[in-house]
Amino acid sequence: MGGAILSEFLTQTLIPVAAVVGIGFALLQWLLVSRVKVTPSGVSSNNGYNEQLLVEADEEGVDGRQAVIKCAEIQNAISEGATSFLFTEYKYLGVFTVCFAAIIFLFLGSVENFSTKSQPCTYQKEKMCKPAIATALFSTVSFLLGALTSVISGFLGMKIATYANARTTLEARKGVGKAFITAFRSGAVMGFLLAANGLLVLYITINVFKIYYGDDWEGLFEAITGYGLGGSSMALFGRVGGGIYTKAADVGADLVGKIEQNIPEDDPRNPAVIADNVGDNVGDIAGMGSDLFGSYAESSCAALVIASISSFGNSHDFTSMCYPLLISSMGILVCLITTLFATDIFEIKAVKEIEPSLKRQLIISTVLMTIGIAIVSLLCLPKTFTIYDFGSAKAVKNWQLFFCVAVGLWAGLVIGYVTEYYTSNAYSPVQEVAQSCRTGAATNVIFGLALGYKSVIVPIFAIAVAIFVSFSLAAMYGIAVAALGMLSTIATGLAIDAYGPISDNAGGIAEMAGMNHKIRERTDALDAAGNTTAAIGKGFAIGSAALVSLALFGAFVSRAAITKVDVLTPKVIIGLIVGAMLPYWFSAMTMKSVGSAALKMVEEVRRQFKNIPGLMEGTAKPDYATCVKISTDASLKEMIPPGALVMLTPLIVGILFGVETLSGVLAGALVSGVQVAISASNTGGAWDNAKKYIEAGASKAARELGPKGSDAHKAAVIGDTIGDPLKDTSGPSLNILIKLMAVESLVFAPFFATHGGILFKI
Amino acid sequence: MGGAILSEFLTQTLIPVAAVVGIGFALLQWLLVSRVKVTPSGVSSNNGYNEQLLVEADEEGVDGRQAVIKCAEIQNAISEGATSFLFTEYKYLGVFTVCFAAIIFLFLGSVENFSTKSQPCTYQKEKMCKPAIATALFSTVSFLLGALTSVISGFLGMKIATYANARTTLEARKGVGKAFITAFRSGAVMGFLLAANGLLVLYITINVFKIYYGDDWEGLFEAITGYGLGGSSMALFGRVGGGIYTKAADVGADLVGKIEQNIPEDDPRNPAVIADNVGDNVGDIAGMGSDLFGSYAESSCAALVIASISSFGNSHDFTSMCYPLLISSMGILVCLITTLFATDIFEIKAVKEIEPSLKRQLIISTVLMTIGIAIVSLLCLPKTFTIYDFGSAKAVKNWQLFFCVAVGLWAGLVIGYVTEYYTSNAYSPVQEVAQSCRTGAATNVIFGLALGYKSVIVPIFAIAVAIFVSFSLAAMYGIAVAALGMLSTIATGLAIDAYGPISDNAGGIAEMAGMNHKIRERTDALDAAGNTTAAIGKGFAIGSAALVSLALFGAFVSRAAITKVDVLTPKVIIGLIVGAMLPYWFSAMTMKSVGSAALKMVEEVRRQFKNIPGLMEGTAKPDYATCVKISTDASLKEMIPPGALVMLTPLIVGILFGVETLSGVLAGALVSGVQVAISASNTGGAWDNAKKYIEAGASKAARELGPKGSDAHKAAVIGDTIGDPLKDTSGPSLNILIKLMAVESLVFAPFFATHGGILFKI
Repeated sequence: MGGAILSEFLTQTLIPVAAVVGIGFALLQWLLVSRVKVTPSGVSSNNGYNEQLLVEADEEGVDGRQAVIKCAEIQNAISEGATSFLFTEYKYLGVFTVCFAAIIFLFLGSVENFSTKSQPCTYQKEKMCKPAIATALFSTVSFLLGALTSVISGFLGMKIATYANARTTLEARKGVGKAFITAFRSGAVMGFLLAANGLLVLYITINVFKIYYGDDWEGLFEAITGYGLGGSSMALFGRVGGGIYTKAADVGADLVGKIEQNIPEDDPRNPAVIADNVGDNVGDIAGMGSDLFGSYAESSCAALVIASISSFGNSHDFTSMCYPLLISSMGILVCLITTLFATDIFEIKAVKEIEPSLKRQLIISTVLMTIGIAIVSLLCLPKTFTIYDFGSAKAVKNWQLFFCVAVGLWAGLVIGYVTEYYTSNAYSPVQEVAQSCRTGAATNVIFGLALGYKSVIVPIFAIAVAIFVSFSLAAMYGIAVAALGMLSTIATGLAIDAYGPISDNAGGIAEMAGMNHKIRERTDALDAAGNTTAAIGKGFAIGSAALVSLALFGAFVSRAAITKVDVLTPKVIIGLIVGAMLPYWFSAMTMKSVGSAALKMVEEVRRQFKNIPGLMEGTAKPDYATCVKISTDASLKEMIPPGALVMLTPLIVGILFGVETLSGVLAGALVSGVQVAISASNTGGAWDNAKKYIEAGASKAARELGPKGSDAHKAAVIGDTIGDPLKDTSGPSLNILIKLMAVESLVFAPFFATHGGILFKI
Repeated sequence: MGGAILSEFLTQTLIPVAAVVGIGFALLQWLLVSRVKVTPSGVSSNNGYNEQLLVEADEEGVDGRQAVIKCAEIQNAISEGATSFLFTEYKYLGVFTVCFAAIIFLFLGSVENFSTKSQPCTYQKEKMCKPAIATALFSTVSFLLGALTSVISGFLGMKIATYANARTTLEARKGVGKAFITAFRSGAVMGFLLAANGLLVLYITINVFKIYYGDDWEGLFEAITGYGLGGSSMALFGRVGGGIYTKAADVGADLVGKIEQNIPEDDPRNPAVIADNVGDNVGDIAGMGSDLFGSYAESSCAALVIASISSFGNSHDFTSMCYPLLISSMGILVCLITTLFATDIFEIKAVKEIEPSLKRQLIISTVLMTIGIAIVSLLCLPKTFTIYDFGSAKAVKNWQLFFCVAVGLWAGLVIGYVTEYYTSNAYSPVQEVAQSCRTGAATNVIFGLALGYKSVIVPIFAIAVAIFVSFSLAAMYGIAVAALGMLSTIATGLAIDAYGPISDNAGGIAEMAGMNHKIRERTDALDAAGNTTAAIGKGFAIGSAALVSLALFGAFVSRAAITKVDVLTPKVIIGLIVGAMLPYWFSAMTMKSVGSAALKMVEEVRRQFKNIPGLMEGTAKPDYATCVKISTDASLKEMIPPGALVMLTPLIVGILFGVETLSGVLAGALVSGVQVAISASNTGGAWDNAKKYIEAGASKAARELGPKGSDAHKAAVIGDTIGDPLKDTSGPSLNILIKLMAVESLVFAPFFATHGGILFKI
């Protein structure tokens, strides 16, 4: 069969180098962002413009220096709120992580009754492998590492976002282009840090574990799957907790502020406004960062664990084994070049160039990455090799693996473009939804829901094609690397995704600091593009989650020693139908949580407007802290039931009903969850942008619906509010549901195979 | 193995006798309803009360005689509108039926190249079976018969409903009990006619086909499956067309009438009011009748076709073979007794007794039917027999089959009760939704969607238990008879289901005829209970559809000569994920259709209010006919794309991708569609009743939200309007989607097995 062209030494060098380059590039971007000063003193020389000029340009007479000070204050308040929330959240997560680590160790250790003797391997019976207790221990360690990396990814993202938001506002004074670059660079910091950290930690873990495991790669990479589980379980709570936080505040703020009191969004008189802005950072930034890190970690783990029982696992070909990591390394370099196109090569001069520029990022990274994949596939894989395919061995050629990765990558692009089509107000779907506001909120909701349902069609076909091609060419390994392909440009994806909430915050800060309405218009334009890119980001997250969980599912089935999952058996079909129900149960919980928390927020905001004299007139300050507390308490309390649903389902089903039913549950949750997630996030994105379409009034048709406060606009605001929990809480949490259940099943597969299905054993 | 205790002669006698008894009972109920006269002359003696008294009791001074004449007029208008729409619809359906019959004949005939020679049987290779061209011909005939019976069922239902609506209004003058009995009896007419007709036609068809087929039961019952296909394909267009019709009118009428002009529901000044009432009859009555007839026909066909290759098929034990028909016969008798409890044994005296009385119907029929099933199972089945189980034979005992049918029956009851809990305003879920209207339409929609999602949980577990028990005991035959068990009390189910739209219409007629507000209150109370029973009916329809389509799916897989449907093969998994997407695509189409048609209706209604002087003052009559035309045109035009999606998908997938992918599509559509359907119809039902809860103001909490026209009520009306297409168009059409694709696949299975999957053959 022969080995890869790239030597093991070069592999061992190139991966950490790529990771370090990624981290360096992220720090460089941070440095560039930090040049924008949020302290008025000594500004002029650094920022290269005269503060005084800006003050003169400010038509409404808000003092520029005053505005800068105010921006800094607000930024501090947001940053402190977000940090304090995340630390409280991490306390809960710490308890969970310790308990769950204990469960992992005990359950996996019990597979061979905590024996410390070596055992025959699962797949190569003639060889001896490390005992189950070792896998239990190392799985626990990698679980902890994954959890830690996930938390750090989210936290750093939040830090840079709250660092960048006021800077974006201040740059918006100079024009939309400068503001765009600041927001985008900050997104890039997060993207590159996350991609590079994820790669580096995984790389080091593999090498450290290898010292103990030696030749037993089967055990080594089985233990590594804990990394994915750790990453994803933190992401679950991050997404759900953050999602409830942000939307409780957002919905609460909108319901009283915009609808009842008729004050603008982000008005500083609204007591929930700080909580709303904090929410963007803990939900859309930290939560999303953890989520995509989880996807990345899981798809790498899925690919590695399948590869460990392939021909290069058996022949200990380290370079080929590291193919998934090499793809990610190449991805970092490709994204680095891609980023330069947005920040240095093309310059944004007008509002209408923002969306094309972001879309160009997707296209450039995809095209470059296709070449990158070809190079990695040719250099790092043997010409032919065999892949484990549910009991039989499948011969695969290296160019076939190129197609597997590439089809995932391009499916991601298709999903991104379709999402953009359905959620951007530049196209007819959103415009139709906006037009339906003429006849009120009811038709707006009907059209919006229909749009979301419709937007599922093409992405599902894209995912189906990716699955079919990669599965046919290289079985489950193909699917795992297809998922990696979709995620290979994760740094760019995250950059354009994080850019959205940063712009949203920037707009909020401009409003709160009482800055010129022109600045608000600029940040609004950035934000509208951000809604679309956020939807695109969610599309990627969902698409990759579908592929990842299928790959994990395949790995689980292999590991659980079943060779088929036949729908036409009672155990599987009941799993399938119950699994398909789980996304609904989960969504019911999260949406209800947002609703209840929002009701509490509404009552508090109303109370403040009633009881604090001078609040509406702007002479008294609202009590922001109480609103922050309501969001914090609600999200921490409410994230537990949905979290428990996701974490306990695989355990309960596996223990009581066994691996066949669990397979059904995973497949059911996968095929149903993908649809719910895509439709929810696109419906929400479309409503948000339909509202922005009316507010912006860029065309004659749009102006006829407006202005703000018109009946059509009110109907649009109702749609937007309904869309909030759909697009930012329940929708994006669902990808974690399907991935997490799959990776958890994979980690516990040996336990279920040994001790599971007790109901049927009675 | 031995045969059944019941002789073939008795079987041949009892089935038609039960059917005739059912028809006779239906006619008796019709006769009782017809005693209520809608002509004022000669009323007193027949109705047993004095017309003059009623006029005096009429506080608002509307002349009683005048009101009766007006009722008759309105009833005529509704009846004519409905009849004219259905005839137009049937023209379209006629064209479709002829074309599709030709496709069936050609496709199935081509399996053996139109050879007229006998061929070895599919399952018993040593025997000779009739040629494929005979099956093609007889399948076509049974398809036509199924289509005809379905259309007749729907049409008769509509006729009795439009006959009963004004009579219910008039009876409401005497009290809520009398009105209830009239509406319920009319529902029973429809229920019994449909159940008995379905049984009778099927019975006759089997006996006639037997003359040609003789001993070849494999071919005989394969040809019979066309009956299910015919029934269900008419149901599809009936549900979709009728659903679009009724909701376009309803949404359009509400948006302008209730929200813009602040006039009550069903106000005669609203130009869309007649179209709205016509819609109830063509959608909720005719469409639903066709739907449940389809379920009944399909589950019978699924059971028969599987039984034909079981031991009693092979040994030509006619009584055992007719077990499904005997269950249905028993069901008719049980429902007959059950009906007497509502109409004769217990009397309704107060509004609050309505819902318990309807619920009692469910309980009584279920308990009695359980005994009935036991009797049939013991008398009509051999003690032990074998069932075909994907290639192997499974030994089954007669008491095991009792459990299969009973578990389906009781699962239906559980689904019914859970649906009631989530959609009746007597319980906390709907009350919470109503309370959320305090903070506006947005929270109402969020809570309503969450309620719908949550309401999926228990029904899915009930379905899963039913599947598991019946599948484990008797493979696919078990599932088919479990579906039949759920449908065995169809006459009662339909009676309480049809009761809803009749009461709704009765309320509309009272309003339009300008009758006393007390009468309107009584019909409103009937209607509120009707909303709940309609939701229960939909729950049954969906639950049974899930079981039926699984049974059909199993029969298809057997017939297509594949022995397993392994999720872990590329062909199946892509089918699964695309299949799970189809309910979304379909819902997007139907909801958008309702939205667009409603917009047209809104424009027309607005135009009339603007251009017809004196309309608001009640001095000029609106132009009802134009609104009827808009609904008619829209529904006929818009029913084609979703219809085509459902009808073409199995053909395209089967021909291009083959039976494995088609299996995946069927399983995916099943597990995903059930969830969407349940959540959509319960969300809609809950919103409707949350609105009614506020309007009725029966408790202190409810009165605080009201009265009509308050902000909370307006928010509730928005929710109700959004719910309309969910609960009456897209939701209930989805059961047909999953059933129809399955039965179509079954009918075409020999064709796909021979000529299908051409893409993979290249």
